[in-house]
Amino acid sequence: MKPEPATTTLPTRVLMGPGPSDVSRRVLAALARPTLGHLDPAYLEVMDDTARLLRAVFRTANRLTLAVPGTGSAGMEACVAGLVEEGDEVIVGVCGFFGNRLAEMAERHGARVHRVEAPWGETIDPGDIERALAAHPSVRLVGIVHAETSTGAHQPLEEISAVAHAAGALLLVDAVTSLGCVELEVDGWRVDACYSCSQKGLSCPPGLAPVTLSPDAEAKIRGRSAPADSWYLDLTLLSRYWGGERLYHHTASSNLGVALREALLMVSEEGLEARWARHRRHHLGLRAGLAAIGLGYIPRRSLPNLNAVHVPAGVDEAAVRRQLLDRHGIEIGAGLGPLRGRAWRIGLMGESCIAGNVVAVLAGLESILEEMGLPITPGAAVSAAGKVLATT
Amino acid sequence: MKPEPATTTLPTRVLMGPGPSDVSRRVLAALARPTLGHLDPAYLEVMDDTARLLRAVFRTANRLTLAVPGTGSAGMEACVAGLVEEGDEVIVGVCGFFGNRLAEMAERHGARVHRVEAPWGETIDPGDIERALAAHPSVRLVGIVHAETSTGAHQPLEEISAVAHAAGALLLVDAVTSLGCVELEVDGWRVDACYSCSQKGLSCPPGLAPVTLSPDAEAKIRGRSAPADSWYLDLTLLSRYWGGERLYHHTASSNLGVALREALLMVSEEGLEARWARHRRHHLGLRAGLAAIGLGYIPRRSLPNLNAVHVPAGVDEAAVRRQLLDRHGIEIGAGLGPLRGRAWRIGLMGESCIAGNVVAVLAGLESILEEMGLPITPGAAVSAAGKVLATT
Repeated sequence: MKPEPATTTLPTRVLMGPGPSDVSRRVLAALARPTLGHLDPAYLEVMDDTARLLRAVFRTANRLTLAVPGTGSAGMEACVAGLVEEGDEVIVGVCGFFGNRLAEMAERHGARVHRVEAPWGETIDPGDIERALAAHPSVRLVGIVHAETSTGAHQPLEEISAVAHAAGALLLVDAVTSLGCVELEVDGWRVDACYSCSQKGLSCPPGLAPVTLSPDAEAKIRGRSAPADSWYLDLTLLSRYWGGERLYHHTASSNLGVALREALLMVSEEGLEARWARHRRHHLGLRAGLAAIGLGYIPRRSLPNLNAVHVPAGVDEAAVRRQLLDRHGIEIGAGLGPLRGRAWRIGLMGESCIAGNVVAVLAGLESILEEMGLPITPGAAVSAAGKVLATT
Repeated sequence: MKPEPATTTLPTRVLMGPGPSDVSRRVLAALARPTLGHLDPAYLEVMDDTARLLRAVFRTANRLTLAVPGTGSAGMEACVAGLVEEGDEVIVGVCGFFGNRLAEMAERHGARVHRVEAPWGETIDPGDIERALAAHPSVRLVGIVHAETSTGAHQPLEEISAVAHAAGALLLVDAVTSLGCVELEVDGWRVDACYSCSQKGLSCPPGLAPVTLSPDAEAKIRGRSAPADSWYLDLTLLSRYWGGERLYHHTASSNLGVALREALLMVSEEGLEARWARHRRHHLGLRAGLAAIGLGYIPRRSLPNLNAVHVPAGVDEAAVRRQLLDRHGIEIGAGLGPLRGRAWRIGLMGESCIAGNVVAVLAGLESILEEMGLPITPGAAVSAAGKVLATT
C-alpha cells in the first residue's frame, strides 16, 4: 500500500507563471491565523478594511467594492451574470483566450455578443469598438480585457471608455492580470465594472476576486427584471453581506479574507505607484536578458508583469518548463489556444517581481537552452539584465 | 488617522456555531505552505489524493468526486445547475432555511419545484415524498437536506431514496452539515448527487465544497441539451480539470486544496466510524448539560453535531451570544428565519467536538444566564455533562 502523502514534503516553488505569484511569509502567516466565523465582529471589521483598501487599489470611490468568493473567473461571472439580461446586445473585444472566455460567458448568460476581434498578441482598436457601437446601437455594455493573460498584451482603455460612454454603454473591464501591477484608474477612466483576482498583482493565495461597480453599473443590476442566473455569484446578495445589513449569504473563507487584507496592507505600504514602477523596472531587465538569448516578445504592447515570448523553432517547450521546475524550482507558463506549444509566459507579479527572480529565470533558461544545443553565450542574458537593473 | 489594522491582534475563538468549526494547527500549517501553481505536478497529486480521500468520507466509488471552488452553497449550485434543465419538475423537501434555499436555487435554474413541507424542526415524511411523486409523475429529481443547519434536524434518507428511485428519480442530498460528523452512505443509500463543505465536519477552513455524483447523475449532466447556467460552477468543466485531461478551468486555491487534503488525512487516521461515535458521545454530554439548565431542543431528531435549543422566554439571545464571545471567546450561532431571536445553535463539529468545549460552553451559558436572573444552579450543567462524558 502506498504511504499516505506528507504535506511537509511538498516543494517550494518560485512562481513566475501567469499566476499565482509568490505569497509573502507575512500573508501566509495571516492566512494561517485561527479561523474566524463569517459573522464574527472582528471579521466584519476585516471586511470593512478590505473594501476600503480595495477602493484604493482600484482607484475608485465606488460603494459596491468587495471580494467575490471565488477566483478571477468567478469575478468575471459575477459581473456578467449581473450586467447581462436575456437578449441584451453586448460588444466584447477578443484578441486572446480571456477575451474569448468573456464573450462565451456573456453568451451563456443570454447575451447576443458582437465580437470585435484582433489577432492574438495585438490589442483592440478603439475605432473598431466605435464602429461596432454604431452598427449595433442597442448595445449598452462593452467588455474588454485590460491585460490579456494569454498573450501578454496590454490594452489601452481610455479611448475605448470614451467611445463606449459616448454611445451610452457601460464599460466592463477584466483586470485579472493588471490590478496591482500596472496603472489602472477605475474612476479616472470611467470603468463601470471591474474584476480581478487575489493571486497575481496582489500576491495573496488564489480564491478571492476583487470586484468594483460604478453607481451606474449598480443601478443596472438593481433594475434587472429577473435575478441573476447565478445565486452564488449574485452581486445583489453579495453586497447585502458586505454592506451594513450583513445579511448571511455564504460562509466566507475568513482565512482567505484575512490574508487578502494583509496583502492589500502591503500594497498600501509600498505605495501603488511605486509598485507599478517596480514592475516596469524589472520588466525592462527581464526583457533585455531575453533579447540577449534571442527570445522575442509575442505582443507589440507588452504588459510589464506578464512576458509572453516565442519558443525557438525546434525546441520542446514543455521539456524546458519541466526542467526549469525540476532543476531550478521555477514555474513559468505554457501557451494557451493557438499559442499552445509555441509560447512561454513569464510572470513578474507582486512578490515574484524581484531582481533575484529575473536573474534566476534567465540563468535557468540559458543553461537549459544551451544544453539543448541552441547557440547561447553563457551568461549573456544574466549580464544584459543585470546592466539594465543596475541603471534603472 | 486610524492606525492600520494589525492581523496579529485578531482574536482566537472557540468555534461552536453552525460552522466554521475549529481548524487544527496541523491543517493551518498545511494551509500556510508556500502557494503552488494549479497545474504544478505536485499539486495535481494533491488533487488525486483529495478525490480518493473524499470518496472514502462520502463512502462512494463515484468517479466524479471533487471539490468545487466555493463554499457549501457553491456545491449546492453546481449540483442544481448541472442536474436541472429549464422546465424540469423537481421535488424538494423543505423544513428549514436550507431546504428553502435548495428549492429557490432550483427555481432560479429553471425548475418547476414541488415543495414537500414539514414544520421547522421536523423532518420530511418519506410518505409525503412518495405521494408527491405519484402526483407529479414527470419528476426526475428529488432534493433533500440531510442535516438541516437551521433547525438541527437529522433527516433519515434511506426510505426517501427508495421512493425516489422507485419513481425513476435521482436523489440529490445536501450534506453540508453532516459529512464527517454523522453516518452518510452515498453508495449504500443510493444518493445520486451529494454536496458538502470543507469547514464543518472536516474542520478545514471554508472555501471548498466536496461534491460527488453517481454514474446516473453524471449521465444526466452529460446529456443536457444546453450547458449549465453557471460557467464557474459547471461540473462538466470542473471534472475535466479534476480528471486525467487536466484542462485549465480556474486557478484552484492550492492553499485551500492542500489544507483540505490534510484535514481528510486526519479523518482517515481517526477512522470515519470512530469520528461519528465521537460526535454522538459529546452530543450526549452536551444534551445532558443543556437539560440541567432547562434548555430544550428544537428538533425531535437532533443531529449530534448541531444542537439547536430554544432561548428561554424573556432572554435577549443576542446579548448572551455576545457575552459568550467577548468573555469566553466562544462563538455559537443565532436562529435563522422564523427562529431568529428564538434559538441558539451550538455546534460540536470536527476539531470543536471535544469534552473541554462541551464543558466550556455550558459553564459560559450557566454563568451568563444566572447573571441575567434565571433560576440556574451553578455547576448543574457542567456536572450533568461530566457524568455522561465519564461513562460513554
